[in-house]
Amino acid sequence: MPKLNENYQNVKDSYLFAEIARRVSVYEKEHPDKAANIIRLGIGDVTRPLTKSAIEGLHEAVESQAAAETFQGYGPEQGYAFVRKAVSDYYAKQGVQVDPEDIFISDGAKSDTGNITELFAKENVILVPDPVYPVYVDTNTMDGKQILYMDGTEENQFLPMPDDSVKADIIYLCSPNNPTGACYNKEQLKAWVEYALKNEAVILFDSAYEAFVSEPELPRSIYAVEGAEKCAIEFCSLSKTAGFTGTRFSYTVVPKELVFSASDGSTMSLRDMWNRRQSTKFNGTPYIIQYAAARVLTDQGMEECMQNISYYMENARMIAETLRKKNISFTGGVNSPYIWFRCPDGMESWEFFDYLLENAQIVGTPGAGFGVNGKNHFRLTSFGTHEKTKEAMERFKQLF
Amino acid sequence: MPKLNENYQNVKDSYLFAEIARRVSVYEKEHPDKAANIIRLGIGDVTRPLTKSAIEGLHEAVESQAAAETFQGYGPEQGYAFVRKAVSDYYAKQGVQVDPEDIFISDGAKSDTGNITELFAKENVILVPDPVYPVYVDTNTMDGKQILYMDGTEENQFLPMPDDSVKADIIYLCSPNNPTGACYNKEQLKAWVEYALKNEAVILFDSAYEAFVSEPELPRSIYAVEGAEKCAIEFCSLSKTAGFTGTRFSYTVVPKELVFSASDGSTMSLRDMWNRRQSTKFNGTPYIIQYAAARVLTDQGMEECMQNISYYMENARMIAETLRKKNISFTGGVNSPYIWFRCPDGMESWEFFDYLLENAQIVGTPGAGFGVNGKNHFRLTSFGTHEKTKEAMERFKQLF
Repeated sequence: MPKLNENYQNVKDSYLFAEIARRVSVYEKEHPDKAANIIRLGIGDVTRPLTKSAIEGLHEAVESQAAAETFQGYGPEQGYAFVRKAVSDYYAKQGVQVDPEDIFISDGAKSDTGNITELFAKENVILVPDPVYPVYVDTNTMDGKQILYMDGTEENQFLPMPDDSVKADIIYLCSPNNPTGACYNKEQLKAWVEYALKNEAVILFDSAYEAFVSEPELPRSIYAVEGAEKCAIEFCSLSKTAGFTGTRFSYTVVPKELVFSASDGSTMSLRDMWNRRQSTKFNGTPYIIQYAAARVLTDQGMEECMQNISYYMENARMIAETLRKKNISFTGGVNSPYIWFRCPDGMESWEFFDYLLENAQIVGTPGAGFGVNGKNHFRLTSFGTHEKTKEAMERFKQLF
Repeated sequence: MPKLNENYQNVKDSYLFAEIARRVSVYEKEHPDKAANIIRLGIGDVTRPLTKSAIEGLHEAVESQAAAETFQGYGPEQGYAFVRKAVSDYYAKQGVQVDPEDIFISDGAKSDTGNITELFAKENVILVPDPVYPVYVDTNTMDGKQILYMDGTEENQFLPMPDDSVKADIIYLCSPNNPTGACYNKEQLKAWVEYALKNEAVILFDSAYEAFVSEPELPRSIYAVEGAEKCAIEFCSLSKTAGFTGTRFSYTVVPKELVFSASDGSTMSLRDMWNRRQSTKFNGTPYIIQYAAARVLTDQGMEECMQNISYYMENARMIAETLRKKNISFTGGVNSPYIWFRCPDGMESWEFFDYLLENAQIVGTPGAGFGVNGKNHFRLTSFGTHEKTKEAMERFKQLF
């Protein structure tokens, strides 16, 4: 009889979005007259269509698959050289040097942040912020690994900093953060890199929201910090940058400098291990999507992306302005599509969810879904339309 | 300092295709006059372009991503209902009932056969045929799992059968087989299902080449055998069926009947575990590809696929006929795009590789790359053009 991986029994069911859907559905049934009024600012999914460059790139690539002369079968598991180069060039425009050979193209930052745990043995001290994107916790739990949490609170503006008394081996950071919208500045990231180098720890840096950083002095990549190539793996994606949530394209940087000792004294390269992992358990991102992604990463392609991002950030501005007027403290809203705020009147996050749904027909995301430290906080997103976001904020203003 | 997964040190480097490329390159440099003559019948990749239905489906789906009204963001991790239904209907046409709820859409049988190992604990007896598709071995080795091999030989026509003295927990089967082209008949698969049910083992059945089965009495799915839903997971893909090797679409069936005991006496469902795995570490196959795949799985779409498969099978027929004329015993060539034969004159497979390259400028794949039992065998594939395959077989006939 097969012996199953019983660590799965320790993974919590992901109730969050199912529970949100259930409560909204109950409300709609009880208040059919108000169902049409509901405005959803809870989801973390984009709504603007793909850009002109992406669409043109996709059509061109599809057409090339229709003729034997230009047909592409299996591609390199690491991604085509042309798109690894395009990602490297994209970094270079931010003043960050990344060797194309260290860039691995994939189908999602979720896949890669999840699968990367395979490279590490069970015996590691894994440090994860709370509140947090649940994938970091769930994937390590499935592996039977122990997690240490570090608190994100209003006191540290949801940007936990290294604690020298904690000896971590692997550290998850996400900046700009999901769900808090908080963004580390360069000094703060430098402190993390210094901690990692001193403790020989590896930072797993999720920069999926880097394109929303508008303040030029804020780092959009951990490799903007000197020495990070000796201690950090970075995960990024076109999901939010180019609206690729349903199209799927991401990239992970595993610098060749990441070499550690094995128990027999030999050395192992994380880059080589990741290459072996991807070559063995992945067959590459679809050719047509790699082709379109390279088009998106050109100057013209990114200009179109930035138009969509500006559209969303206008929503973020409206939400932030409303909270500011109501003296509600928040993080995010600038440099991030997320706005994270303390629930008014001492409410807990699920209580506030119900209150906001019943009294203003606004759907958001309760902070409790992201960890203990989210229990009095709430997340709104800027991925709606201007009209709906404006209307939601008018209702919000009247309510408080 | 991070403790790495040292099982990676036990994974053999995949020299096979790199070594083939190296030897061909050396030959080309030493014989520049003959470089243009080289015919490659080694690769397992398709060469015919995508079908009309696939191209039309892709273009339509791309266009729908250009407008906000039809734009699709994150989809269900398990795949859209419309394509899970299309896969279920495709099975139904072969007389096999599969619940759409048990079908998980993914980006490759390689990804899924690799990732499925996560559901199982280390302490399992894992049975793998030799010769074999290397992914089964490598992914279990990366996990630190022990593998037992079962011999595929000329005596059993490379179709190993269950041995009651071996108590396996997990069994890998691939039929039609890569690399041997051998295909289990219904009686043989029934014996495997009976063994699995008796021993409470799980069969991991790779049916990636099912569309090449032309003899109607041969099973194209393990679920053609009664009781298989209680003991088998099936992996299939459009890679070879529809030329999707660069487009990426696969499906895995994990029947809800697969429920086993945990050590605390509770029960765990492999379907629920796989659902949790995919929901946590995967964000779904690209929408545009799912849309096109559903089009491919229609009657019209499959008719177009079968035209390409017939094209390849004409190559297989030519190769098989040549071997038959030369009294060289082989498996495959019918019901499979692969032809697997004993190297003539007692040669070992790498020796024969060099001999064939030097004397006929034909590139094939040495059987040694697939396991110990392949050391005197050789694989040719039918994925070339008619012209090149015909020319190669004429050279082959003259050589022996």
